[in-house]
Amino acid sequence: MSGLSILDNFFYPQSIAVIGASSNLQKVGHVVLKNILFGGTSTSDKKEGFKGKVFPVNLREKEILGLKTYKSVKEISDRIDVAVIVVPAKDVLKVTEECGQKGIGSVVIISAGFAESGKAGSSFQTELLSIAKQYGIRIIGPNCLGIISSSENLNLTFARVKPPAGPIAFISQSGALGTAVIEYALEEYFGMSYFVSIGNKSDIDDSDLLEYFAEDSGTKCISLYLESVRDGRRFFNSMKSAAKKKPIVVLKAGITSAGAKAIASHTGSLAGADVAYDAAIRQSGALRARTMYELFDASRALAYQPPVKDGHGIAIVTNAGGPGVIAADDAYKHGLPLATLTEQTIKLITSVCPPTWSRQNPIDIIGDATPQRYRRVLNIVASAPEVGGIIIICSRQALTQIREIVDDMIILSKSIKKPVTVSLVGIVAQEEDRILDKNGIPVTEVPERAVEAMNALFLRGRYLDRLNKSGY
Amino acid sequence: MSGLSILDNFFYPQSIAVIGASSNLQKVGHVVLKNILFGGTSTSDKKEGFKGKVFPVNLREKEILGLKTYKSVKEISDRIDVAVIVVPAKDVLKVTEECGQKGIGSVVIISAGFAESGKAGSSFQTELLSIAKQYGIRIIGPNCLGIISSSENLNLTFARVKPPAGPIAFISQSGALGTAVIEYALEEYFGMSYFVSIGNKSDIDDSDLLEYFAEDSGTKCISLYLESVRDGRRFFNSMKSAAKKKPIVVLKAGITSAGAKAIASHTGSLAGADVAYDAAIRQSGALRARTMYELFDASRALAYQPPVKDGHGIAIVTNAGGPGVIAADDAYKHGLPLATLTEQTIKLITSVCPPTWSRQNPIDIIGDATPQRYRRVLNIVASAPEVGGIIIICSRQALTQIREIVDDMIILSKSIKKPVTVSLVGIVAQEEDRILDKNGIPVTEVPERAVEAMNALFLRGRYLDRLNKSGY
Repeated sequence: MSGLSILDNFFYPQSIAVIGASSNLQKVGHVVLKNILFGGTSTSDKKEGFKGKVFPVNLREKEILGLKTYKSVKEISDRIDVAVIVVPAKDVLKVTEECGQKGIGSVVIISAGFAESGKAGSSFQTELLSIAKQYGIRIIGPNCLGIISSSENLNLTFARVKPPAGPIAFISQSGALGTAVIEYALEEYFGMSYFVSIGNKSDIDDSDLLEYFAEDSGTKCISLYLESVRDGRRFFNSMKSAAKKKPIVVLKAGITSAGAKAIASHTGSLAGADVAYDAAIRQSGALRARTMYELFDASRALAYQPPVKDGHGIAIVTNAGGPGVIAADDAYKHGLPLATLTEQTIKLITSVCPPTWSRQNPIDIIGDATPQRYRRVLNIVASAPEVGGIIIICSRQALTQIREIVDDMIILSKSIKKPVTVSLVGIVAQEEDRILDKNGIPVTEVPERAVEAMNALFLRGRYLDRLNKSGY
Repeated sequence: MSGLSILDNFFYPQSIAVIGASSNLQKVGHVVLKNILFGGTSTSDKKEGFKGKVFPVNLREKEILGLKTYKSVKEISDRIDVAVIVVPAKDVLKVTEECGQKGIGSVVIISAGFAESGKAGSSFQTELLSIAKQYGIRIIGPNCLGIISSSENLNLTFARVKPPAGPIAFISQSGALGTAVIEYALEEYFGMSYFVSIGNKSDIDDSDLLEYFAEDSGTKCISLYLESVRDGRRFFNSMKSAAKKKPIVVLKAGITSAGAKAIASHTGSLAGADVAYDAAIRQSGALRARTMYELFDASRALAYQPPVKDGHGIAIVTNAGGPGVIAADDAYKHGLPLATLTEQTIKLITSVCPPTWSRQNPIDIIGDATPQRYRRVLNIVASAPEVGGIIIICSRQALTQIREIVDDMIILSKSIKKPVTVSLVGIVAQEEDRILDKNGIPVTEVPERAVEAMNALFLRGRYLDRLNKSGY
């Protein structure tokens, strides 16, 4: 909470009206109400719902999920902080007007059928905005999945599952992409402070949210999936200003004419020239993710691990030659420098490794590496002044004691100020993965993704160094 | 089996000696013997081991895993087709010589401590080859994980798990990478006909195996993880010749000086200039994978799906706008053309979709798509002459009936000659994934990987078209 913003009203309401609530299990209006009341399916959190008052609005039904319904928000005598609208597009204008008459200032419109669906929809959206302006209503949507505010146990979406709470604020211009990220979040412990599906962003947009999350103390990384921007200059300035306070990761899709054409038909806006976006994102201090995996991995790393300091190089510690080579190649492709080990570091590692260790970076400590050998080498590398961050690769070879090695990684990571990313290569080990995830160490199945995660921390470190030097 | 090659002796033996077998559960010599006898852990196959005779060789123990042991292969009266050696490096020369004296022609040497580990090891390896030459022994290894021949239930490795049987022959220059691929194979139903860890490839190498697998009727795709090549010209010619018969996917690592230095220390050979490799792989007709995921995804697609014919464009069918845009962007990056839908195709799709469908490719059939709508649209697209292959994206939105849609994908894929790849975006649905995998439809969690898989099929189709036009 920033205490300053109109967005506080959306994320910290005391009471919510669900306009279009339904007792039909197959309807979005049912799923939204259920998610608000019970929090939504989650494996990692208690199933707790929103603690404030909830009012279902439905023209025909008398009771839904044990709550009395109302035919209109105007019938409700309590104050309503947020209304969520899930009625068909043709009825949205009317119920929005009723929200205005009731004095509701914050409305989330899930209903589709607006600017994304042709001329008639566009003029619907224009009318909607004129009603909102008349009554001073702020809108998230329409054509969106909804919002989540983790500290309030508020799951105001129709997603099937709920992400764990955590430090990532996620903004998505695509509802379906948002759904996918929420499912991923649950699986990979991608903890979210907020989730906002901005849909057609007829009113509240990415820039508003960037400014808000930049000030939020529970948010350590802001991640965006973006297809188009309404006001390029404002977006650039919002990113630039927010990047000084929080790392930002942007997956900007629609780089091609095919992609751009697809966008035009699904969220009602046109993709800008990709080159301009690319330059704007880089110059603002944000990181541009090129793939969904990079969006996931960079966000997790930036939210949970410290940045690489002073442009120092990275050490790769591995029990597997091939994956170490792949990681070194990939670091090169990213421009991520590998540390050149000093004589002293090589001497120390030699004292705890068999003579066949690689004697250089990548530090191949050989396939028969025990937990003890990993622990000793990692401690040496963590203390080496030439090393700015550590990528740990562990492949389950003949007799690798993976669980003990993983436990040591966690102890190490908590005791040092250098970032750690991990690849348990090819290891079908959901338990070990989950332990690392929950302890804030990004872990992936292929070495390339551990490099990508570390690269995000390197770029963030370099950005902060420059920022400090420039005296801002 | 080719019936022609020295390699038949390795993959189709009647009897095997395990030199260095052990009853100590912590030793590689125990794991190898156990894997030969019982086949190794697998979730998808019956646990069946090698049907021929197995002879453990050990100096001290009398019986291992219920089998009588021998102090030397020379004590065994039966004929031995293959010996696998897991004794320490210093004893390898002696036992290899005994193999020669016993008349064993095929030896797999798992033991490390040869050319990969410095000068002394290199001269060991030279001596080893001179003994082999003297007795006419062929060697796989040393410093390797072993071999698998699926049709014979022969798992002659020390890997923890066993891949399912299938059409992919996998060659790995890194044992650890090989282990990772085997674990992945089990998880993702990456079915293997053969697996060969070539280690230091002192004798049998990638070129020998390419030539062998090109003639093997059970192999539909040859996949290699490669770090260096001994004889560049021969390797190029082997690839070029094999590519005419089978698709080949190569992950060539060590593109950088850091990667190359790491390689030198772990398999005893030097990486060549990356540019030369790149050109050679492309010109030969093989596909160069850039990441481990691409190696996995391209191999699965090429092994299980038909190539894209006549350079036709691809259709993307999705219930999710954002992931469709990401897929379109990614196709562009790969140079994979999207089909331009004809008026006729658009008319047909319009007749079975709500008016808000995208009316172009990517074909966004909207978030509320039912199994019926997917089925109808997929049938139209499959029959459209302008479409050469279909990427199906399915995101679990509010009420998506994922299982029924997946079942329809399988029916469709079996009834058409166009390739299909799938992304169940963000769906935590191991069951549906497994069903698709087992039916030969490559499925991934992010759209980018479904595009990568289709791109491999497009490139293979284009290669075959050119091959046919050039009249061989």
